[in-house]
Amino acid sequence: MTPIFRTELTPLSFLERSAIVYPNKVGIVHGDREITYAEMAEHATRLAHALKASGIEPGDRVAFLCPNTPEMLIAHFAVPLIQGVLVAINTRLAPMEIQYILDHSGAKVLVGDTELLANLTPVVDELTTVGEIVAIDDTDTPLDFAATPYADLLARGSSEALPWAVDDEERTISINYTSGTTGRPKGVMYTHRGAYLNALAEIIHSNHSPESVYLWTLPMFHCNGWCTTWGVTGIGGTHVCLRQVDPAEIWSLIDTKGVTHFNAAPTVLIGLTNSPDAHHFARPITITTAGAPPSPTIIEAIEGLGAKLVHVYGLTETYGPHTVCELQPGVADLDVAERATFLARQGVSFITAEPTRVVDETMNDVTRDATDMGEVVMRGNNVMKGYFDAPEATEEAFRGGAFHSGDVAVWHPDNYIDLRDRSKDVVISGGENISTIEVERAIESHPAILESAVVAVPNETWGERPKAFVVLKEGQSVTGEGVIAHVRERLAHFKAPDTVDIVAALPKTSTGKIQKYVLRDREWADQDRRIN
Amino acid sequence: MTPIFRTELTPLSFLERSAIVYPNKVGIVHGDREITYAEMAEHATRLAHALKASGIEPGDRVAFLCPNTPEMLIAHFAVPLIQGVLVAINTRLAPMEIQYILDHSGAKVLVGDTELLANLTPVVDELTTVGEIVAIDDTDTPLDFAATPYADLLARGSSEALPWAVDDEERTISINYTSGTTGRPKGVMYTHRGAYLNALAEIIHSNHSPESVYLWTLPMFHCNGWCTTWGVTGIGGTHVCLRQVDPAEIWSLIDTKGVTHFNAAPTVLIGLTNSPDAHHFARPITITTAGAPPSPTIIEAIEGLGAKLVHVYGLTETYGPHTVCELQPGVADLDVAERATFLARQGVSFITAEPTRVVDETMNDVTRDATDMGEVVMRGNNVMKGYFDAPEATEEAFRGGAFHSGDVAVWHPDNYIDLRDRSKDVVISGGENISTIEVERAIESHPAILESAVVAVPNETWGERPKAFVVLKEGQSVTGEGVIAHVRERLAHFKAPDTVDIVAALPKTSTGKIQKYVLRDREWADQDRRIN
Repeated sequence: MTPIFRTELTPLSFLERSAIVYPNKVGIVHGDREITYAEMAEHATRLAHALKASGIEPGDRVAFLCPNTPEMLIAHFAVPLIQGVLVAINTRLAPMEIQYILDHSGAKVLVGDTELLANLTPVVDELTTVGEIVAIDDTDTPLDFAATPYADLLARGSSEALPWAVDDEERTISINYTSGTTGRPKGVMYTHRGAYLNALAEIIHSNHSPESVYLWTLPMFHCNGWCTTWGVTGIGGTHVCLRQVDPAEIWSLIDTKGVTHFNAAPTVLIGLTNSPDAHHFARPITITTAGAPPSPTIIEAIEGLGAKLVHVYGLTETYGPHTVCELQPGVADLDVAERATFLARQGVSFITAEPTRVVDETMNDVTRDATDMGEVVMRGNNVMKGYFDAPEATEEAFRGGAFHSGDVAVWHPDNYIDLRDRSKDVVISGGENISTIEVERAIESHPAILESAVVAVPNETWGERPKAFVVLKEGQSVTGEGVIAHVRERLAHFKAPDTVDIVAALPKTSTGKIQKYVLRDREWADQDRRIN
Repeated sequence: MTPIFRTELTPLSFLERSAIVYPNKVGIVHGDREITYAEMAEHATRLAHALKASGIEPGDRVAFLCPNTPEMLIAHFAVPLIQGVLVAINTRLAPMEIQYILDHSGAKVLVGDTELLANLTPVVDELTTVGEIVAIDDTDTPLDFAATPYADLLARGSSEALPWAVDDEERTISINYTSGTTGRPKGVMYTHRGAYLNALAEIIHSNHSPESVYLWTLPMFHCNGWCTTWGVTGIGGTHVCLRQVDPAEIWSLIDTKGVTHFNAAPTVLIGLTNSPDAHHFARPITITTAGAPPSPTIIEAIEGLGAKLVHVYGLTETYGPHTVCELQPGVADLDVAERATFLARQGVSFITAEPTRVVDETMNDVTRDATDMGEVVMRGNNVMKGYFDAPEATEEAFRGGAFHSGDVAVWHPDNYIDLRDRSKDVVISGGENISTIEVERAIESHPAILESAVVAVPNETWGERPKAFVVLKEGQSVTGEGVIAHVRERLAHFKAPDTVDIVAALPKTSTGKIQKYVLRDREWADQDRRIN
């Protein structure tokens, strides 16, 4: 029997608490819908019973394919409430990719938003494990295959109380498939314990309070919304749903719903600050950003609108954020350019994470001199349990006793890490490593440039050389030569790109990350290997 | 081997992190001394090595008898760093009481402040387990027995890094002896896991941030300072030490050190607000209060000075605070009297605690009608591991599957608990329970009255009747009849005291709790039993 002094850690306890403390407070806003915490807990309980009645047993996977809607949020509690495992699928994947995830996870039930389910028509008859498809119709979208209406699923449930508890805190709570820029997606397993601790850390580092009004710009399918699904529920804040990232809609919700916090990748912030609706925030707002180092230009723009920017860094394998660029005493007094340079670093571990390290190939720490590059590795409670049904990939990722991020960083003398690249993105030119991020920062400091991506291209003399793809701000112009000259004024000349393509847009993943591999594939199409 | 995805939870990681993130930031201020986080970690490491060199092995107890000084704080990390158990002794105990705790805990080493050690002279030769006494001389106080200077102890250590880790998160980190108003003190065992989680909850509920400047009005020996020793260190705030609670000194430190937070019992707040130095706070201050429900009068006074009051409730057995009176939406708009009535409730469980219950003798929940009284019981991660070397007392406290607080409360329909009394403080008059707290609140709403205590006294007709002891504000006057009339205007007449003693002061424990048993003992001296 569990001793009296021990409760297994689980984020289920967060919804239990908020339903006790704030039963009549609005926990979720979605358009005109308002759902109180009592209703949210009741809905989660009913859905849990319904899934059980549909054959879901402890450990079974339940897939959700939904935008940031109330049902997607509530599933984060309903599925674990019967010790099931939530698989929230990236909504922008192609039908065959979704099919792969459903097959690989072995999900017995798929609950989807009709607008997204409609895209599954080509593969729906080929699903091997899904016994039932349940459709949530939020947008009056017709389906051309049979699906159970969500209301019918719920009707199988009841509001009879279930314990907001788990039998073992290391039980898997969710599987999040990596976006898989190369190879097949891998299923990252989170535990109840890890989700609980990371949610508390999100509350602390994003400074949430019961007064938080959190706008869902970040997809909930992305690391379970960095565990903010659980965190904002735990602190008793209000979730504001958002079906898709649209700057005009975001500005409207910020203005009308009293938003105090949101999380967004730098590319989303670029869209926001360049929107015609952009204006100074009416109240203090905390924006937590990750996915790429925010350029000084973005930091200056977003702070100029009155927001506090928290820069965090992590991966799907680390429950989302693992480090935060903590402000040091005195940083607030720096001029905006110096402050921006400081804030662009990835920083130090979350309060619930073990110290993040930067290591060489033999797992020894690199010198903390802001120059030596190494790989970022992590271990501890904020690291995944492993890849689902992939022991070899897990072993490979955990080699040497830590999780290998594949990200390349330098370590500053003050212990902050500063990303230089994804391992595979580094340009090796005549044996010298060139950080494509550093080159991009230099390019983006040009006032005419909105965003950029630098990749390695094959070169007879140097092996590889950097090439830049550049998107201009509306109505602005600059030549490739102008870009190169701008970079050469700022960096060692060998780091400047040899060629620059001015393009209309960059290829991006659903979470706003630039897909450098798409650019690289194009440039290396005629080569028989990808490293020169 | 511990899996890569698991770190044993321990507050040791908090000092490790702050030494990495804020090495040069001042972590501790004590008079003119300023100690950075790097120095604090180095000091803790050196002290840990020194204790090990002095024979301390994993599981051994190390006693500290110190006011709120840097050494007392650092011991919270140094002792567990070698898997030792910290016994921080109440500094206001009599020599024989301290002797009992040293003997019972089996502490091998006693580290003490010379001012406090000096009082131990009568018993120092009778200590059975203490092999060495180490003296910290913060005040130039001479000792008349032999003791190792603290510097000599430290000289046995080294700064060689020790892992900021524990082998098992359920290992005991500290033993805190209850103040023992009746019977012998009991040694409450805290675990690394419980201390870690409660420290995170303190950060969240008292809204700490890296900018926190925390004034040590609360004794560190009291529930390890409600785990704030570990929490403020973890968030990277600044600790401001304080040897003794003195309103003039507190006001001075608030003004000169930039204090943003402190914790204090209502009796301390009475002293502060009535001090001639009292003035409006120059910056936003959060005061977390516990130990007794703050009267509406205190709440109004402290809010009038510009502080935010957080009311929490707990016991030594629950790592200090276990519940918090969360503000509901709209409470801020209530008038001060209504807001004060709301804030006087103990509230709901901390985010890391299981829901607190109010139960009858058969462990069933009482009705949530604000009328039915029952005992407050708790279980989960914020409950002690048990009483040290006292299995029977532990079993008794844990009977029925929960920790029995001994406190009597009603449960409001909105799930907030509201304390009515310590079990032994309830007045049973003609079979009716009278909450002495309720009577005290009515008495203290009288403008001439500073504080009061109501106890049961024997009565021929009714069995027991309430009697009030009242302290007047300086320069004020009121008669006993005036007090009784004031209460009868506010409460059912049977609840009004029959007699009122106007006294100069009330007997109090070292932590500011009124010792009702002292008053009761006097009144019941001629009786052969204490319940009528």
